[in-house]
Amino acid sequence: MREVAIIGIGQTKVGEHWERSIRDLAGEAIFNALHDSGRENFDALFSGNMLSGLIDQQNNLGSVIADWVGFTGEAVKVETACSSGASAFRAGIMAVASGEIESAMVVGVEKMTDASPSEVTSSLATAADSDWELEQGVSFVGLNALIMQRYMHEYGWKHADFAPFSMNSHANAAHNPNARLQYAITKEQYLNAPMVSAPINLMDASPIGDGAAATLIVPLNTVLNEKNAVRIAGSGAATDTLSIHSRKKPLFLQAAYLSAQQAYRQAGIAPKDVDFFELHDAFSIMAALSLEASGFAEQGQAPKLGLDNEITPKGGRLPICTRGGLKGRGHPVGATGMYQIVETVQQLRGECGETQVDGAKIGMAQNIGGSGASILTHILTKA
Amino acid sequence: MREVAIIGIGQTKVGEHWERSIRDLAGEAIFNALHDSGRENFDALFSGNMLSGLIDQQNNLGSVIADWVGFTGEAVKVETACSSGASAFRAGIMAVASGEIESAMVVGVEKMTDASPSEVTSSLATAADSDWELEQGVSFVGLNALIMQRYMHEYGWKHADFAPFSMNSHANAAHNPNARLQYAITKEQYLNAPMVSAPINLMDASPIGDGAAATLIVPLNTVLNEKNAVRIAGSGAATDTLSIHSRKKPLFLQAAYLSAQQAYRQAGIAPKDVDFFELHDAFSIMAALSLEASGFAEQGQAPKLGLDNEITPKGGRLPICTRGGLKGRGHPVGATGMYQIVETVQQLRGECGETQVDGAKIGMAQNIGGSGASILTHILTKA
Repeated sequence: MREVAIIGIGQTKVGEHWERSIRDLAGEAIFNALHDSGRENFDALFSGNMLSGLIDQQNNLGSVIADWVGFTGEAVKVETACSSGASAFRAGIMAVASGEIESAMVVGVEKMTDASPSEVTSSLATAADSDWELEQGVSFVGLNALIMQRYMHEYGWKHADFAPFSMNSHANAAHNPNARLQYAITKEQYLNAPMVSAPINLMDASPIGDGAAATLIVPLNTVLNEKNAVRIAGSGAATDTLSIHSRKKPLFLQAAYLSAQQAYRQAGIAPKDVDFFELHDAFSIMAALSLEASGFAEQGQAPKLGLDNEITPKGGRLPICTRGGLKGRGHPVGATGMYQIVETVQQLRGECGETQVDGAKIGMAQNIGGSGASILTHILTKA
Repeated sequence: MREVAIIGIGQTKVGEHWERSIRDLAGEAIFNALHDSGRENFDALFSGNMLSGLIDQQNNLGSVIADWVGFTGEAVKVETACSSGASAFRAGIMAVASGEIESAMVVGVEKMTDASPSEVTSSLATAADSDWELEQGVSFVGLNALIMQRYMHEYGWKHADFAPFSMNSHANAAHNPNARLQYAITKEQYLNAPMVSAPINLMDASPIGDGAAATLIVPLNTVLNEKNAVRIAGSGAATDTLSIHSRKKPLFLQAAYLSAQQAYRQAGIAPKDVDFFELHDAFSIMAALSLEASGFAEQGQAPKLGLDNEITPKGGRLPICTRGGLKGRGHPVGATGMYQIVETVQQLRGECGETQVDGAKIGMAQNIGGSGASILTHILTKA
């Protein structure tokens, strides 16, 4: 298997792009990535997206985007709910690694804000088990609320102890021109935010959004002399039971553990070697579970990392969500995994200004689909 | 890139499985394929499906199926409308070819008959261009009717000239225990069928259905001594404009041409070497266009192959749809591409009884998504 690298990145701002179509957003990210790479074309297109069928009445999204950007090679959509972006990225990696193609454009794209809140809520719920969870009337936030409630009960944390996760993401988003919520929040704002589904309040939950992010993947040996190249050192993917009630340990993200271990093995590193971690803080509880399953904290102890100031880009032992994470940058679901990859590349290139992690050489990104049913972990390093 | 092979196949009957869930259908095909392969597990799961979100309110289908069959490795859904099955198959090929994994289970699955006819019609329409075709009120059958009308006008064929395509598919389906419509039809039945969208009548159009088909893909060098192994000799994929009105030559399937040429090149063969062809006769006009773009007939001349009796399994120069095709076996859209692959393997193994193509050594399968927007061609040979 030949090694692969990222040579171009592109993204749109995350926001409410009511005046633009899903293909238009994808096209902007793709052309930005092409321009950034200095290349003029690519061999295959992999799009990560969850909701184009339900919200945009548009399937066949690979062809839609290919058509829009004037490409007639192969194009597919890869879907694993909120981890669709990372799944498309991994499909692109394997396609180039196989030797079947020489370059893969991967774009994560989602357009959600045209739909009504109830349509969005019911669409997002399709990430959970339709037959066994949704039938009970639970929403996707509701499932995460059950997990958070149990976690607080089991390990004795208070709601306030999760504040550092959301405050860090917002503080970092304030310096990311592509973030949806470019402002810091105070602890008081966190504590007093309106309740969504107890104990998850508005400041525990990431906002949805419209947006697209893209990368161009090529064989590593073709870009060894290019300063912007970033090596894909590890790629792991795993699944868990779809329903939370089927899990023996509902507070442990087994798929995060399995995919992280796979990525560490491939990269030949341990958690202590990771300089920063773009994790999937769809809800603050997911930040905690992700840190624990990936080997950065003992089970039940992740909130301590936040309270001890270990997660901030300046001075933290393990900076997370350095461009705002899902909470601050926004969570255009099928695009999120690709935003994480693009942001990881930005850190390794040293392009993050106020939230740059000094001397960052190894970055990790983790994307979660469903309430932990599909999780992918990628490790990127300077080429 | 290492060569790959198919070592196990499985399928369910295509039909109206009202009493069974989508995961149950997928599971049956997967366990059948595993049993057929003599293996007990696999490294990754690729599911091809178009409509689980719209019809079953279930995204994250990879995890759904993985959960059901007790698998915790990586699992994704690949979607390219009606060619989702072949797209998932190609993703599985590249994953094993890359060396990243040692075995890929690919399952195409669709469950459509629980929905109302109008829901099915509007769901299938999402394979076309939502912004520029569906806005005009055209259905997916309507788009194909426009193509057929133009084809008849341009090349002087009558509706009756397409009868051999549907009659051949039905005659072959009569001998396939997994087909939805297991009966032959007469020319009179073809001519007098109720009109759907002129000139497409009920006997030009394939029936939808519920079903699943699966294969296990492994490295070729691990199965050279196994009599059931089938080599994947060529794999091609391409796209075309989504909207028919954007095409310079709307009667020529450019993506079929490009993907077939790619597959021929990889396999080192020419059209004349192909012993049988499992093509995508979603509508009889598509059978004609597929034959022409793939190099088996001059443009505008494919109906002659049928009228000259060249497409039947016994005595035909190029047997097509030997297990019933989409018209007779049925068209559970995201599963169809995998049914074609499974049926191609059955022919190469000599398991097709009454419709066995004597001495078949090279088989080709072609799967079409949208009205030609995404097309994949695969060539299989005895290992």
